[in-house]
Amino acid sequence: MERHYLDAELQALKNRLLNMAALVEERTHQALQALVERRPELAESVVAGDTDIDVLQIEIDDRCLKLLALQHPMASDLRLITAAMKINADLERMGDQAVNIAENALKLIQLPLLKPFIDLPRMAERAERMTRDSLDAFVNRDAALARSVLVSDDEVDDLKDQIFRELLTYMMADPSTIERALAIILVSRSLERIADHATNIAEDVIFVIEAKDVRHHHEEA
Amino acid sequence: MERHYLDAELQALKNRLLNMAALVEERTHQALQALVERRPELAESVVAGDTDIDVLQIEIDDRCLKLLALQHPMASDLRLITAAMKINADLERMGDQAVNIAENALKLIQLPLLKPFIDLPRMAERAERMTRDSLDAFVNRDAALARSVLVSDDEVDDLKDQIFRELLTYMMADPSTIERALAIILVSRSLERIADHATNIAEDVIFVIEAKDVRHHHEEA
Repeated sequence: MERHYLDAELQALKNRLLNMAALVEERTHQALQALVERRPELAESVVAGDTDIDVLQIEIDDRCLKLLALQHPMASDLRLITAAMKINADLERMGDQAVNIAENALKLIQLPLLKPFIDLPRMAERAERMTRDSLDAFVNRDAALARSVLVSDDEVDDLKDQIFRELLTYMMADPSTIERALAIILVSRSLERIADHATNIAEDVIFVIEAKDVRHHHEEA
Repeated sequence: MERHYLDAELQALKNRLLNMAALVEERTHQALQALVERRPELAESVVAGDTDIDVLQIEIDDRCLKLLALQHPMASDLRLITAAMKINADLERMGDQAVNIAENALKLIQLPLLKPFIDLPRMAERAERMTRDSLDAFVNRDAALARSVLVSDDEVDDLKDQIFRELLTYMMADPSTIERALAIILVSRSLERIADHATNIAEDVIFVIEAKDVRHHHEEA
């Protein structure tokens, strides 16, 4: 009976984390869309919408603390709940990065277009997918999916380096592009940070499933 | 008797976190020193030393999980242990930023000096102090000290904006400075991230002490 209650509570916790991840993914997507389609009102709505994520974070943390205090979970349940608290913190910070992107979008929209965006939406798409996959891996205890997120992180880093080199060339050739190029570089760094958080989540998921610490062992994977 | 054992374990946990914070602070300091004094070997040692921090992180996480599993801590002990897990994750990521700074230092050392570093060491000093203070606040349950960290974060953000504006002027005036200016901007962003992590820790500390969630309420503080 008690087990039944704990299982239901753990399921509810997973659902809340999925909601939060969906929200973060949507905000990231909207921030990029605002930038590419030059829609200031959409960027504004991303900045304003951060409160929803913050409220969810506090609720999820509270759920975890109550489960730890009242259910005395053991072994894999314990790892699941403590991982949920870390995942929650990562998701909240991903939401902050979506806001950073929206703020840079607002700046960029006011300036002439430097060039059509190609790599940045691609990078965002990867980061969003990583967010989704890391959470799906958590909920479905899918270690293979979690490992695929670690691989995607390297692709995102490559795209970030590529964007950086390209914009460096623009800036060197024409200093009037510097301000815009810098704002675009900052957007790519925010996307990199979102991908980093998804990677942290994926590592936590592998730890929950395999009780094996994969952090700091990417290279050997 | 059991209480005595738990208290001793919690003290040991706090000591390990203090060790880790001291290590992170030292690495950040050395990375900046390597940059300012143009010492590649010191920068290399910061990059190589990241393993120590990673090993400590895994040990601390393990300690926390064991305490949760075997001691069934309640209320404030429970909050303390779950906060320790989050603080541990923040410290590890601060260590990653020290490595990023060292890597940018290695790049900058090879190029002619753009100008003497004044604001960056100041920013680093603040970020290091915030790291130290947030951990002291945790160990000594000092909410006032934790709140002072939240205030310092705004100062660090101001310094970051100031550095950005100054380097923008350099780049606009002379495109040959762009590569160096960008590397310096990235160093300032890493310091900002270290300060952000210290702020996250300070917020967790206030939550542990006052069981009140201060996250997302800076503005009103």
